[in-house]
Parts: sequence; structure tokens; C-alpha cells
Amino acid sequence: MKNKQGLLFVLSGPSGCGKGTVVRELLNQNEDIFLSISATTRLPRDGEVDGQHYYFLTKEQFEEQIATDGMLEHASYCGNYYGTPKDAVMNMCRSGKDVILEIEVQGALQIKKKHPDAVLIFILPPSLEELSRRLIDRHTEDMETINKRLAKSTEEIRHAKEYDYTVVNDTVLETVEQIESIMEAEKFRSKRMLPMIDDLFSTK
Amino acid sequence: MKNKQGLLFVLSGPSGCGKGTVVRELLNQNEDIFLSISATTRLPRDGEVDGQHYYFLTKEQFEEQIATDGMLEHASYCGNYYGTPKDAVMNMCRSGKDVILEIEVQGALQIKKKHPDAVLIFILPPSLEELSRRLIDRHTEDMETINKRLAKSTEEIRHAKEYDYTVVNDTVLETVEQIESIMEAEKFRSKRMLPMIDDLFSTK
Repeated sequence: MKNKQGLLFVLSGPSGCGKGTVVRELLNQNEDIFLSISATTRLPRDGEVDGQHYYFLTKEQFEEQIATDGMLEHASYCGNYYGTPKDAVMNMCRSGKDVILEIEVQGALQIKKKHPDAVLIFILPPSLEELSRRLIDRHTEDMETINKRLAKSTEEIRHAKEYDYTVVNDTVLETVEQIESIMEAEKFRSKRMLPMIDDLFSTK
Repeated sequence: MKNKQGLLFVLSGPSGCGKGTVVRELLNQNEDIFLSISATTRLPRDGEVDGQHYYFLTKEQFEEQIATDGMLEHASYCGNYYGTPKDAVMNMCRSGKDVILEIEVQGALQIKKKHPDAVLIFILPPSLEELSRRLIDRHTEDMETINKRLAKSTEEIRHAKEYDYTVVNDTVLETVEQIESIMEAEKFRSKRMLPMIDDLFSTK
């Protein structure tokens, strides 16, 4: 017997920690988990579809959303806004689905502040060497960019302790199992079970 | 990659909620989980073995343990002491084993106060009617005793919200799975992962 309200899980981790693969596998294995789609003001890249990869908004539309408290969190990065539209996430949770947000540390901590009920999970690479190797193996960036990313990663890792949980991504399948355990366990936190306890025993 | 320190899990629930069966099944399925053996000053019943069902102590031995902070928690009940010897539990945790304590609400809350790191799980029956039916089906007690137990159970259930987790024991196997998820997830709480995070990144 479980809580009927879906929960909000926020996943972060430094670039190269493998969180994209972990999230994809988690969604493959659990069709009742939903991935929130971010909104952005940056232009779509080749092949990116509105409402699938991102909601592509104009700067005015985005600022209107911020002004009317329509974003769960937002940040600007390289001159563009990125954020999480609130209504879609909240409707999903209300309908009993768990929602995953894959966002940056800054946005995650904004959400924890506004919604202490959200569950924050930080994904670590097995080591900084491994992180560096993974970024180099991508062959998409020059060493200067990689070094910048590594510096940013080290900075981000310092925030792991502000997250509720920290998992080390040694192998994708193990990490997915660990996150599944966390998602299952969180449903049984007493604070979330209170309405159910009342239901069970109030009319007796 | 997990924390190497074993964790302390405290299970409570009203008489008739089925926690005995749940704990037995949990231990059957997980040979790396240990059940703490309580100490008591009551006399052994037929078939009870010292160091297996209980540690049977004299009143003087028990009070000596209390005086030297040798008990994690203790209570007296029907004129006898009951308690959890500290050293055995702590040594087990230090060696990386998870330890389960199956104890009363009063003792559980004592432990949470002294060891905030302990994880408290409350086991609820599906309903008070079901609890009543289970107690009656045991055929071991008269209705007056059963009614007293039910009154005590209702009182105990009010403490569920002070526990970290609450599970409803609809079916034993489901409940065991839920507790396994909780035990797995708790290993990844960021506060417990800190030493590991430091290990991973301190020498880089």
C-alpha cells in the first residue's frame, strides 16, 4: 500500500558522470516514471523537436513564465534561459506519476528550497580520472573546454552533500537499481504516509 | 559503490501487525542482515535458549549494564527489564553488517535520540479490523487481553509519524521488498556517503 501522490526526483551530476545514460535506462525500465521536459530560449539544434527535447520559448514568453511563478526553477547560461515549467510537473505528480528532473545544481537547490518534498539525487563519477577519460573519449571537445568542464565538475561535486542522496555511477545498471531503491523507499517516508495512516484508522 | 559501515534499523509495530513474520522472511532472504538479540531479566520459557532467543541476565547484571551505558535502550515491562546490549550491535555495524532491532516504540525512540543515524521503520497492519482478526485467530488470548492489546496498538500507531518510514503489512513478501528498498536506499543518503566522496576526490 503506497502513497498515491507521485514524487518529484531531481537528478544532477557533473558533465561526464553518465547521468544521461542512467536516466535513459531508468525510463526504459520503468514506464510509469516521467522525465520533465525543460524550457529554453536557445534556438533548436538540428533534429531537436519542440515539446520533446525542449519547450522552445522566446525570451518574452520565458520572462512571462518567471513573472507568473510558472517555473519550478530557472537559470541563465551562455545568455539563454533554461527552466522547468511548473504545471506539467505538478499535474503529473498529482496523477500519481513520479517525475524526474535532470537539471543543474543551481536549479536543483532552488527546487529544494521551494519544494522541500522533492528528493535530490546526486550522481558521481567513480573518480575524477574516470570523469576526465569519459569527457576525452567523447571526442566532441578540445582540451581547453574539457579542462573547464573538469574545473566546473569539481565545483559541482562540492554540492553533493546538499542533496538527499549520492550515488556513484560505477556501472549504469547498478546505478539504475540504486536509484530505483531510493524512489521506492521515499514513498514510505512517514511524512508522506500520514494521509494514508489517517485514512486507515480514522473511521474505526 | 556503497558505504562500508553497516546501518542500524529499528522495526516496531503493534502486536498482531505481523512484524515477526516479516523479520523472519527478511532474514531468510538476506544472510548479511543480522537480528540483534535482546537482553531480559525475565525467566526463560520452555525451549528458550540463552544467547539465541534472549540474553538472560539477573536484575543486578542488567542494572550494571544500564549504569555503564551498556544498553542502547531499555524498558521495564511487567516487572522485568528488556533491553538491547550495545556492544554486539555496534561491532556488527562496524564490520559492515546491517543490524535489525525489533523493539517497542518506547525503546525505538530512545535509540533515535541517542543515535540519530539509526533508521526507524514502523509496520502497520492493513486496518484495525484486520489487527483484531489476527489477534483473535491466534487463539492464545481471551477477549479482555485482546481488547487491551488493541487499545495499546491504537496508542502505538500514533507514534508512527515519529519513525522515518511507515510500511503497511498487506502481504509479507511485499512488505519485505519495501523494507529491503529502504535498507538499500539509506546506504546512499549523502550524509553517509561523505567519507566516500572525500576518499574518491581528496587525492586528486
